[in-house]
Amino acid sequence: MTSTALPPQTTSTLFPVNFSVPSKEWLREQLVGKKLSEIRTPALVVDRFVVERNGREMRETAQKLGLRLRVHVKTHKTIEGTELQLGDGVTGIVVSTMAEAHYLINSHLVASGKLQDVILGIPISPDKLAEAHDLSRRIPRFHVLVDHISSLEAIEAYCVAREEEGEKNVKFSVWLKVDGGYSRAGVPPTNPSSLHLAQRLHTSPHTTFQGIYTHSGHSYSSTSPLESLEFLHQERDLSLSFRSTLLASGIPVPHISIGATPSVTSASQESSEDLRETSKSRWEGVTELHAGNFIFMDRQQIRTRAAIRGEADCAVTVLTRVLSMYPDRGTILVDAGALAMSKDSTMQGGYGQVLGTRGEDGEDGWTLTKISQEHGIMSGLRTAEEWEEVKVGEVMRVVPNHACLTAACFPFYVVVDGRGREATRGGVREREGQGEVEELVVVDVWVPVRGW
Amino acid sequence: MTSTALPPQTTSTLFPVNFSVPSKEWLREQLVGKKLSEIRTPALVVDRFVVERNGREMRETAQKLGLRLRVHVKTHKTIEGTELQLGDGVTGIVVSTMAEAHYLINSHLVASGKLQDVILGIPISPDKLAEAHDLSRRIPRFHVLVDHISSLEAIEAYCVAREEEGEKNVKFSVWLKVDGGYSRAGVPPTNPSSLHLAQRLHTSPHTTFQGIYTHSGHSYSSTSPLESLEFLHQERDLSLSFRSTLLASGIPVPHISIGATPSVTSASQESSEDLRETSKSRWEGVTELHAGNFIFMDRQQIRTRAAIRGEADCAVTVLTRVLSMYPDRGTILVDAGALAMSKDSTMQGGYGQVLGTRGEDGEDGWTLTKISQEHGIMSGLRTAEEWEEVKVGEVMRVVPNHACLTAACFPFYVVVDGRGREATRGGVREREGQGEVEELVVVDVWVPVRGW
Repeated sequence: MTSTALPPQTTSTLFPVNFSVPSKEWLREQLVGKKLSEIRTPALVVDRFVVERNGREMRETAQKLGLRLRVHVKTHKTIEGTELQLGDGVTGIVVSTMAEAHYLINSHLVASGKLQDVILGIPISPDKLAEAHDLSRRIPRFHVLVDHISSLEAIEAYCVAREEEGEKNVKFSVWLKVDGGYSRAGVPPTNPSSLHLAQRLHTSPHTTFQGIYTHSGHSYSSTSPLESLEFLHQERDLSLSFRSTLLASGIPVPHISIGATPSVTSASQESSEDLRETSKSRWEGVTELHAGNFIFMDRQQIRTRAAIRGEADCAVTVLTRVLSMYPDRGTILVDAGALAMSKDSTMQGGYGQVLGTRGEDGEDGWTLTKISQEHGIMSGLRTAEEWEEVKVGEVMRVVPNHACLTAACFPFYVVVDGRGREATRGGVREREGQGEVEELVVVDVWVPVRGW
Repeated sequence: MTSTALPPQTTSTLFPVNFSVPSKEWLREQLVGKKLSEIRTPALVVDRFVVERNGREMRETAQKLGLRLRVHVKTHKTIEGTELQLGDGVTGIVVSTMAEAHYLINSHLVASGKLQDVILGIPISPDKLAEAHDLSRRIPRFHVLVDHISSLEAIEAYCVAREEEGEKNVKFSVWLKVDGGYSRAGVPPTNPSSLHLAQRLHTSPHTTFQGIYTHSGHSYSSTSPLESLEFLHQERDLSLSFRSTLLASGIPVPHISIGATPSVTSASQESSEDLRETSKSRWEGVTELHAGNFIFMDRQQIRTRAAIRGEADCAVTVLTRVLSMYPDRGTILVDAGALAMSKDSTMQGGYGQVLGTRGEDGEDGWTLTKISQEHGIMSGLRTAEEWEEVKVGEVMRVVPNHACLTAACFPFYVVVDGRGREATRGGVREREGQGEVEELVVVDVWVPVRGW
């Protein structure tokens, strides 16, 4: 139980510079009530109506399956977004960074009992054990992921050291991260060393073994709910098969948590009856589903069809301003470049698409076809009328490829409410209406946490 | 001179949240003297020795050509980096955002006279005119780029409004942005409307026409100095040809500024004699070169061979920690994902490469082959010995694909000095030495400005 294999470790704690956030109240004073054209660009716009609907529909899907839902907060990293994901009844989250953990555990969500359970969703590194141990005392349940024997040894060494200092019964609550086929993190379920690690997690005096955690990130490659459902079933079956192996070796597996936005959303496509029937036999042992991106959605999820209503399901857009127009080249220059959109890609191509510009036959709309640091090049205007409409200085809303990476570009989010109206490129109008376009007005500001 | 064509504009000024930066002094107290293994990861590490050398060599190249150098600061967005780019004698910069302009114009660089001339390097949008006008009064020369008649009309309308309020002689110093073949921003030099815009800039009572500004961003596609030089010559000839058109129409062109890191660096490959000979005839009219990325360099510039010494010319690396190892899959998990590296690509493939791991025959080293938000998957370990060496919890330095986008991921930079030593993956050792690896120690912290 020593960790001679470990290199020297720092226990440097989170810097305030990575953790402090701008003042929401101050930003609200500056921004609430302003029209989109009055906002400094580029800016991230969140449609709260869509966030609420996406959250509700995901909870209904989990309910259909009779499974607990755990929401990933990395997409938005905000207190407000977490609250709308949790709704009534969900109490568990996954965080992608220690900064998110600190931010949310220090928020009113824990004090009010809405948030009770946090998993740090990336295998813990030895330098962050002290912080994790500290956090575990400020919320009912705080778990870490482990998928390497060295990490367990580091945990044990840390606990022994704390106990030598006089603290009693120092323990970490641990999930075993298992590779569900995505080949990113996680132990291979078929390897004997994985069983050995589970055994050690089960018997160690310094860990409470919670069970199996997988992530079907490869379900992002699917292009239909049926395909996504296939990924969910594969992940489920693989987890249950590994569970059987563990049970056969006398290792209890209290929990299995599986999922990703495309695969979990796809379950909503099955009828409740089918699901209930299936769940009796096939789902026994799986205790929860997890997903995160669903709360915002994006072009990648339009592609997987998790965003079943297309861009109407996308809660975030980048507000950008037209800087110039080059009709000779068929392009428009906007002020949303790579530092506002991120350079993540999607199968549809390009880096983002302007709301409300798709053709009637579903053809691509105005698309960011090229971006560099601060330049966004937009193409796809079809007619002389479209060219005539656009003005230097006007604002447009661009649906990003990958909402998680795009939201991470911004120090705060401007919140609007597009309820019951249809999006135009810079505002909204009555559904089915061809009339006047109305500008959206800022109703709130959300402040995410950044850094590590 | 009215701007009826313009949509309603905001004049919202820069939010402090986008402009205030963490305290350098506080960060120095926390970090200076620490070893890399004691730094919280992921973190951006800047080797000041390499920054200084890159800066000096670029100034020598411009000097060889007998041209003024203007440095782009978007790569680092810091006061310290700007100072090392300016060296002795360079006084002009390009900024990519208003935040950079505010930050540097408010710094000691202007007060000390080192910084005298700023170009906002993206066509100005109507909502930022008030700010630009304000900045122009706090530094000897502040210029904006224009490449659309609507922007000029917005400038004129703004100036008229100010003069109606009693201010005298309100003017903007303007460069005409010309497309040098990159097809990003800029007017097409062969289009009659471009000549018309230049004419308007020349005659408007509210603009001082400075000349032609181009950017050969397409030179990033080159893979040899000779190819890059070709891009530089094309850009030069295109600019000079457009200048002739303007001169023939009675429009003076006081300045031409051209360049990009690969093309400008390539000029260093020519002998001074050749260059002087050439410059007599071919360069007349071009007054300055501009480039920015050269100060940091990256894998993209290793590819263009602007980084002639390969990774030894790369001044920034991402410090990352090993979270887990999966020998079955041949991969290592590190804590530098897409939010630490950016998802920009390079022709070599992957998202970054670990310092000091290239094979002796130049084969690829340990490479980030897959990244998601917070996960970095590293491949390329070749031997059982290499696998044996790596430990969970150890730190490594990864050369990014595109330093500008990677640096933008971090709220501060950790500065080291690798002078006279050879990089290993986590530290340095004596050049040519096979002996003990020594950890680098933090000597300074730089704080960049973010946002728009």
